Amino acid sequence: MSNPFFKNNGPFELNQILNELNFEIKENSNNLIINDIKDLQNSNMNEITFFHSKKYRLAANATKASFCITTENLKNELPKSCKPIIVDNVLVSTSAITAKFYPDSINDDFDNTIEEIYNTKFNDKVKFGKNVLIGHNVSIGANCLIGHNTIIEKNVVIGDNCSIGSNNIIRNSLIKNDVKILDNCIIGKHGFGFYPNTNKNLRYPHMGIVIIEDDCEIGCSSTIDRGSMSNTVIGKNTYLDNQIHIAHNVKIGENSIIAGQVGIAGSSIIGNNVKIGGQAGISGHLKIGNNVEIAGGSGVIKDIPDNTKVMGYPAKNIRDFLRENR
Amino acid sequence: MSNPFFKNNGPFELNQILNELNFEIKENSNNLIINDIKDLQNSNMNEITFFHSKKYRLAANATKASFCITTENLKNELPKSCKPIIVDNVLVSTSAITAKFYPDSINDDFDNTIEEIYNTKFNDKVKFGKNVLIGHNVSIGANCLIGHNTIIEKNVVIGDNCSIGSNNIIRNSLIKNDVKILDNCIIGKHGFGFYPNTNKNLRYPHMGIVIIEDDCEIGCSSTIDRGSMSNTVIGKNTYLDNQIHIAHNVKIGENSIIAGQVGIAGSSIIGNNVKIGGQAGISGHLKIGNNVEIAGGSGVIKDIPDNTKVMGYPAKNIRDFLRENR
Amino acid sequence: MSNPFFKNNGPFELNQILNELNFEIKENSNNLIINDIKDLQNSNMNEITFFHSKKYRLAANATKASFCITTENLKNELPKSCKPIIVDNVLVSTSAITAKFYPDSINDDFDNTIEEIYNTKFNDKVKFGKNVLIGHNVSIGANCLIGHNTIIEKNVVIGDNCSIGSNNIIRNSLIKNDVKILDNCIIGKHGFGFYPNTNKNLRYPHMGIVIIEDDCEIGCSSTIDRGSMSNTVIGKNTYLDNQIHIAHNVKIGENSIIAGQVGIAGSSIIGNNVKIGGQAGISGHLKIGNNVEIAGGSGVIKDIPDNTKVMGYPAKNIRDFLRENR
Repeated sequence: MSNPFFKNNGPFELNQILNELNFEIKENSNNLIINDIKDLQNSNMNEITFFHSKKYRLAANATKASFCITTENLKNELPKSCKPIIVDNVLVSTSAITAKFYPDSINDDFDNTIEEIYNTKFNDKVKFGKNVLIGHNVSIGANCLIGHNTIIEKNVVIGDNCSIGSNNIIRNSLIKNDVKILDNCIIGKHGFGFYPNTNKNLRYPHMGIVIIEDDCEIGCSSTIDRGSMSNTVIGKNTYLDNQIHIAHNVKIGENSIIAGQVGIAGSSIIGNNVKIGGQAGISGHLKIGNNVEIAGGSGVIKDIPDNTKVMGYPAKNIRDFLRENR
Repeated sequence: MSNPFFKNNGPFELNQILNELNFEIKENSNNLIINDIKDLQNSNMNEITFFHSKKYRLAANATKASFCITTENLKNELPKSCKPIIVDNVLVSTSAITAKFYPDSINDDFDNTIEEIYNTKFNDKVKFGKNVLIGHNVSIGANCLIGHNTIIEKNVVIGDNCSIGSNNIIRNSLIKNDVKILDNCIIGKHGFGFYPNTNKNLRYPHMGIVIIEDDCEIGCSSTIDRGSMSNTVIGKNTYLDNQIHIAHNVKIGENSIIAGQVGIAGSSIIGNNVKIGGQAGISGHLKIGNNVEIAGGSGVIKDIPDNTKVMGYPAKNIRDFLRENR
Repeated sequence: MSNPFFKNNGPFELNQILNELNFEIKENSNNLIINDIKDLQNSNMNEITFFHSKKYRLAANATKASFCITTENLKNELPKSCKPIIVDNVLVSTSAITAKFYPDSINDDFDNTIEEIYNTKFNDKVKFGKNVLIGHNVSIGANCLIGHNTIIEKNVVIGDNCSIGSNNIIRNSLIKNDVKILDNCIIGKHGFGFYPNTNKNLRYPHMGIVIIEDDCEIGCSSTIDRGSMSNTVIGKNTYLDNQIHIAHNVKIGENSIIAGQVGIAGSSIIGNNVKIGGQAGISGHLKIGNNVEIAGGSGVIKDIPDNTKVMGYPAKNIRDFLRENR
């Protein structure tokens, strides 16, 4: 995942990392330096990775990371070049270390880097309403409008000819050209991703961003969460109605139409030319093909192949559903 | 439809209109003037209309318009007084011409006509909170309250004794007397109406308004879209709970009660004394009778006669539903 | 119910109360004083109570109230020490008298007691964004953040280490320690509770508050209504996703996880360690046990015992649902 926004706070000494994990230091590792944390495939020498499930065994076998957060049961899958760091709960420990490298990916407090827009370089460049606030690391293209009380928080790129309405809050997002965002949306906040833990849940990092491609329209009072380890993407010329919730890591294709109050749970992938009726819900980690039509109110709990019309809860072929429910 | 708010930008010369449609000009029509665009029934001499489906044949036979956007197949239904303008896609062309006459009905960018309320005539007349903004062509009756950060955008009439909460955005709306609007609502924005078009959807005009009759209450974080060719209406003493979405052209009768997170799709008509439970959804273009009760979570996909209780998805008689689902 | 926020406007002379009810005064009661209005169990001498249904007969037999709003049919259940005040509609009359004692519990107009935070004692104590407003009777603990445009209206207590995002509106709420509230939430507004009445519904009082226990997280654009005669409670370390609606009097236990767009209707009680999937709905006045899992999109219309997984509408045992819907 290309990540333009979250700054790596590292490198750290290995000892600092082991301390964080309450890991007993068995050897002299004082002068070892860890540059980054990545997944098994993408990590390199002097980086740390994590391995928590047998299904990633092949990737573990081939990892180039120097260290790996893992369990006693899994450690033998790692190559000799990768030293295991044994912990009780791999995901919780990984979350803690990722937070160390990328603290901004955990913390979604209000953005205290903002300034009134008329004190920024956008004063002459953008048409804006009252009380517009702009954070650090924001760029805005030509011929854009930004409505009243809207907050463009840090780490936002907006292309040309965009119309952003009023009362929106946007952060960690890449908005391309000719996009319309109506009013009262929250875009780019972290998703509902955390490790449940009695007395104190543990949030995991959200290092992904939201990407809204050219010519999209986002309706009023919608929420689009940024991704955790990948991005949340709304494809070109896709229109969203009001009160829609798009969870983290969701990807929606081009030319799709999503009616009011639809919810799409985390990591689902929606194809091109998809039509989703009002109040339909799509479970997480599903794949919805191209040219699919999902009737309003449906609850989709499994993958849907291309060119299919479905309805019902659980959603099934629309002809079957209507025949059974005459 | 009486339309107090959208200004007719015409008249235009016929040639300007034909140019817009890439229509080859076959005769000398330089000095012809078109005053307005209306539907088949309401249009008059020197106005343009449109005719896109056989089901409007009788209206087409009788139209008084001088010109009609239509197709080769349909043109023979028009009277001799009405000259056909043949296009590939009647609705797309109609949309383009309507946008020419009524540009404000397409464009829902933030309202740049607003001023801080203390710079307006309402400073002494209305009790208001911090950061209240008022657009052009707004009137507010006696004894009204307007909460913090609320934006009364252009083209809003508010009656007497209304309590508008905080963080609301209202435009193109007629709000009668003794109405309460809680917080964070968006009222009068255009609906989710457009012609799907690969690479670039085409929005059609929303020339309707929102009318909220006396004694209504609108809950927090609700959205009520204005109509496209008719108005969206909330009847007298009807109460809406939080997070409700009312789409364009919907009409709700009097004394109805609509619980949280309900969605009503475009152009449906709801009767008087109707009760709708939480999260229920009603498809578009339906007619729900008087004294109907719709159980929470139901999905209504067909008309419902007066005095009926329904439940389920698709919604059916509640006794049948409960018997089948014991 | 302990109620720290709503001030008793009494005492009132009995005649004032009888006048309010259009009750014909039959005896000389000029000098009688009524101190408060409470339910049958909790009321004492020189207080007024109400009794509207046979099912509260035993409580009525034992009430210590001096007066009781009731009907001709029920009056004989009261002890001799309690004089009946006979009315047509007990709940409507009770509402009117409660409103007399507790006017702030009916009226949810925008809070006109607020000031910009930099003019308050919190200026040096809290980290805050632009345009933050604070009402009367607010306290905020150590190390708290309050984001842009957020309004902490009157009667709010916030503990230590809380992170409140931007564009929130909070009133009549007790927020404990280490709570995160993301953006655009409305918390503590009155619920959707009123007596339907042709031409003019009658709101009943909402004297409860919202209590959010330690370590909770509330997602973006959620609404949590305060209670009417009891409180709305979110238990310790419970996490809510975006666009959730929690109605008045709902109580949610500890360590529960509630996904996006869920709605919980009034007075339902949810246990500890409960997981509720996206868009599920729970009817009012239900009891959901501990360790229950409710699948996304379900509609729950009856109580659910501990340790149960349910799915469907109406929700049933998840294995039965999936077997029937293969």
